[in-house]
Amino acid sequence: MYHDFEPVKNRPVYIQVMDYVKRLITEGALLAHQKLPSTRELSTLLRVSRNSVIEAYTRLEEDGFLYVANNQGSFVAASSVPAEPPVCQLEWKPRLNERASLAEELDLMKHGIRAGKGTISFTSIAPDEKLFDLDPVKRAFLDRMAVEGNVLLNYGYAKGYKPLIDYLLQYMSHKGVDLHGKDLLVTSGFTEGLDIVLSALSRSNGAILCENPTHNTAIKNFKLHGFAITGIGMEPDGVHLGELERALRERTYDCAYFVPSYHNPTGIVMSPEKRMALMRLMARYQVPVIEDGFNEELRYSGSHVAPLIATAGRGNGVIYVGSFSKVLFPGLRVGWVLADRELIGYLESLKRARTIHTSTIDQAILYQYLYNGNLDKYVRKARAVYKRKYEWTLECCRTYLPYAQVSGDGGLHLFLTFEESFRTRELLAACSRKGVIFTPGDIFYTDGKGGNTLRLGFSRVSDEDIAKGIRIIGEQAELLRS
Amino acid sequence: MYHDFEPVKNRPVYIQVMDYVKRLITEGALLAHQKLPSTRELSTLLRVSRNSVIEAYTRLEEDGFLYVANNQGSFVAASSVPAEPPVCQLEWKPRLNERASLAEELDLMKHGIRAGKGTISFTSIAPDEKLFDLDPVKRAFLDRMAVEGNVLLNYGYAKGYKPLIDYLLQYMSHKGVDLHGKDLLVTSGFTEGLDIVLSALSRSNGAILCENPTHNTAIKNFKLHGFAITGIGMEPDGVHLGELERALRERTYDCAYFVPSYHNPTGIVMSPEKRMALMRLMARYQVPVIEDGFNEELRYSGSHVAPLIATAGRGNGVIYVGSFSKVLFPGLRVGWVLADRELIGYLESLKRARTIHTSTIDQAILYQYLYNGNLDKYVRKARAVYKRKYEWTLECCRTYLPYAQVSGDGGLHLFLTFEESFRTRELLAACSRKGVIFTPGDIFYTDGKGGNTLRLGFSRVSDEDIAKGIRIIGEQAELLRS
Repeated sequence: MYHDFEPVKNRPVYIQVMDYVKRLITEGALLAHQKLPSTRELSTLLRVSRNSVIEAYTRLEEDGFLYVANNQGSFVAASSVPAEPPVCQLEWKPRLNERASLAEELDLMKHGIRAGKGTISFTSIAPDEKLFDLDPVKRAFLDRMAVEGNVLLNYGYAKGYKPLIDYLLQYMSHKGVDLHGKDLLVTSGFTEGLDIVLSALSRSNGAILCENPTHNTAIKNFKLHGFAITGIGMEPDGVHLGELERALRERTYDCAYFVPSYHNPTGIVMSPEKRMALMRLMARYQVPVIEDGFNEELRYSGSHVAPLIATAGRGNGVIYVGSFSKVLFPGLRVGWVLADRELIGYLESLKRARTIHTSTIDQAILYQYLYNGNLDKYVRKARAVYKRKYEWTLECCRTYLPYAQVSGDGGLHLFLTFEESFRTRELLAACSRKGVIFTPGDIFYTDGKGGNTLRLGFSRVSDEDIAKGIRIIGEQAELLRS
Repeated sequence: MYHDFEPVKNRPVYIQVMDYVKRLITEGALLAHQKLPSTRELSTLLRVSRNSVIEAYTRLEEDGFLYVANNQGSFVAASSVPAEPPVCQLEWKPRLNERASLAEELDLMKHGIRAGKGTISFTSIAPDEKLFDLDPVKRAFLDRMAVEGNVLLNYGYAKGYKPLIDYLLQYMSHKGVDLHGKDLLVTSGFTEGLDIVLSALSRSNGAILCENPTHNTAIKNFKLHGFAITGIGMEPDGVHLGELERALRERTYDCAYFVPSYHNPTGIVMSPEKRMALMRLMARYQVPVIEDGFNEELRYSGSHVAPLIATAGRGNGVIYVGSFSKVLFPGLRVGWVLADRELIGYLESLKRARTIHTSTIDQAILYQYLYNGNLDKYVRKARAVYKRKYEWTLECCRTYLPYAQVSGDGGLHLFLTFEESFRTRELLAACSRKGVIFTPGDIFYTDGKGGNTLRLGFSRVSDEDIAKGIRIIGEQAELLRS
């Protein structure tokens, strides 16, 4: 643009500039509300004096072709553009595939329960942001920027930020993982890790095993990747192995998904003995295991329960997906996949095709925060707070809901089971009118069951509101039960 | 774990603790190199004196069951664990789907040309990190952390960080976009934006139109989403409209992908007249357009060329995918999709299912950096540098490669076309031995052509190396041509 201006002699230049700009507008090369070059810029482009351009702009404004927005320059007036640019009005819905429709349909943030102002909400299991220690985060950012700021701001690697990869490998080896033949991919949070793994393993008529109930986002993503889902019931110490073995005998599965620690939504921690037995079973049937370690750091006692990937020793059948989002800062979208080295190679290429790499700033802040030794200190503080809240919530449930069975060994939530015929959706409707909401348990079930269950996330609710909220739930439950 | 310890009377407690820990080890509940609780923790868990635990640990160490790592505590010795945990050794390759294999196969970072130490590399079109202004970035981070640090570190929204969304909407409206009926989704860079759009529009037997040659990552992602690709040849002012119309008459397409500004790899800027004609054509055939705005900010002159989405006026047929990665900091993985509001709703749900949301820290830094008024200043500086480099590279090409046709109106690269029979892969092999590499042009072609072309990315090469590198390319080309 502006290259075909050919001034003629003996005619005022400013008029020629005016005509030229008018032509661009009427031909549609300049559009409504589009910014024009500054007078200085245009005078250079057209090789005319700046005064000519100033004059031209002034006239064009008077003529209604341009308008001047406060100190931001001159813009094309709406009225001056040609009748209509080519109009293309598409109906989008029929052009979208099933995945897009399903993603929207299963999107709980859109179709879930919304908290009004002043509502006591037990729906969140995000960490309490009041606990966040900002100064060490700022320190970590500035430390890392000082070391290699330019590098952090340019492209990084799909596999992840090297110092963080090395730190996480060591961190996992301290959990008892045999790193031989394994490798690690940094992802944009747990969810991306799971989604990339599923996108590598999915096939037409694919099938997946999981606990029932289980993490609702995982169920959503299994469906989006077209997996048929077989849910296996839970016992107090974890998944029901007899039921699992029956399922394994019946058909082949592409993979299985387990949440062994502070299982979402039941809060159960699978016993070490059961972990070992589970791994023996999966090895016998040669089914890969996706281990969700999302809550693992939130243990309240000092005892370490080895993750499944440690239980598997040198075996390469477990894909561990980890994250600090529940224990540190979810806003830093960093998770990781630890698995067989060859497999990680493929996942790395899928990751590169999707997002090139995870935010280097996020990875660098997390790395430096860990390196500076903040995790242990922070986790100790957070655990103490959540443990107290957990015990308080448990006490309130026992006080106000003595008839509901409670599960949950810690973490950021409890799971309540009422008598078989009870409907927690009705309870939710009643409580919601009284200003209290929670997550109905059925969304965690793979088979439409769990209508008598609910999840209480307590991490972001004050002690006072926990008591008040659970009392209201109890009152409304009594009304429904009578 | 540690809950079933039941001490008996009249037997030294430390021995009972020893036996208990031994049992956990031999039963496999404690694994090789797993960390044990501290003596203080274990004494609390088992309800025994700390001295008993200290004694037990000392003996276990003597017996070879444990080892002590310098000040990090006691760990289970490898020799003490049971023969073998359940071993599951899977062969992963046959378990992966076609998408995973294809992603690996098309991964240029793995199978592309690698630069050895001291090599002059023209393969990158990333910005030159020496130009980055770190202080305003630090300032932006600290400013935003001071305002709402706690919020930034907790979960955000799939659609994006509200202040950034509002800023980008205004930014796009200044480019002449009619925002009526449109909305914006923040993504983890341009690539995620494109990938999410493709994942919503793909279907079995899907088909896509694009320029030929075009952005090689886009070609990769079209293939990963199973699209049949029809490439349309280029003219000096952009895509060949006659050829495009012939293609549109022949079959239906799910969408088309265009890079109107500083097209990758040819560097061509589509003329305003052609943009208007292109949009008329696409409106007539009702084919949605994905507009790649990746390079749009890198214009060297002051003239504004309206993006296709502005040319489309109120029409909803254009999906604009933008990014500041080529002009600002690619390490901040932030891009955006501007499109029809209903469509954005679906893309938002897909985004949520994949990564929950884009790094809030990245979005907040970018927002505050823009808000603080750094973009214009930085872009002016960067443009001046790149413009000079562009002209220098052009001059070197004319000096050392007078027989190669050069295209590229600016941006961070030039595109060279040699005589039909010339093979730039052979040239690359020869140059590589002399310490110079570039990107062979065939990877940008949808139909295997372009064997006589190459792309020269100059953004990260010094003036001296540009001259030296192009001289070497010229010498090797002469040898091959003679």
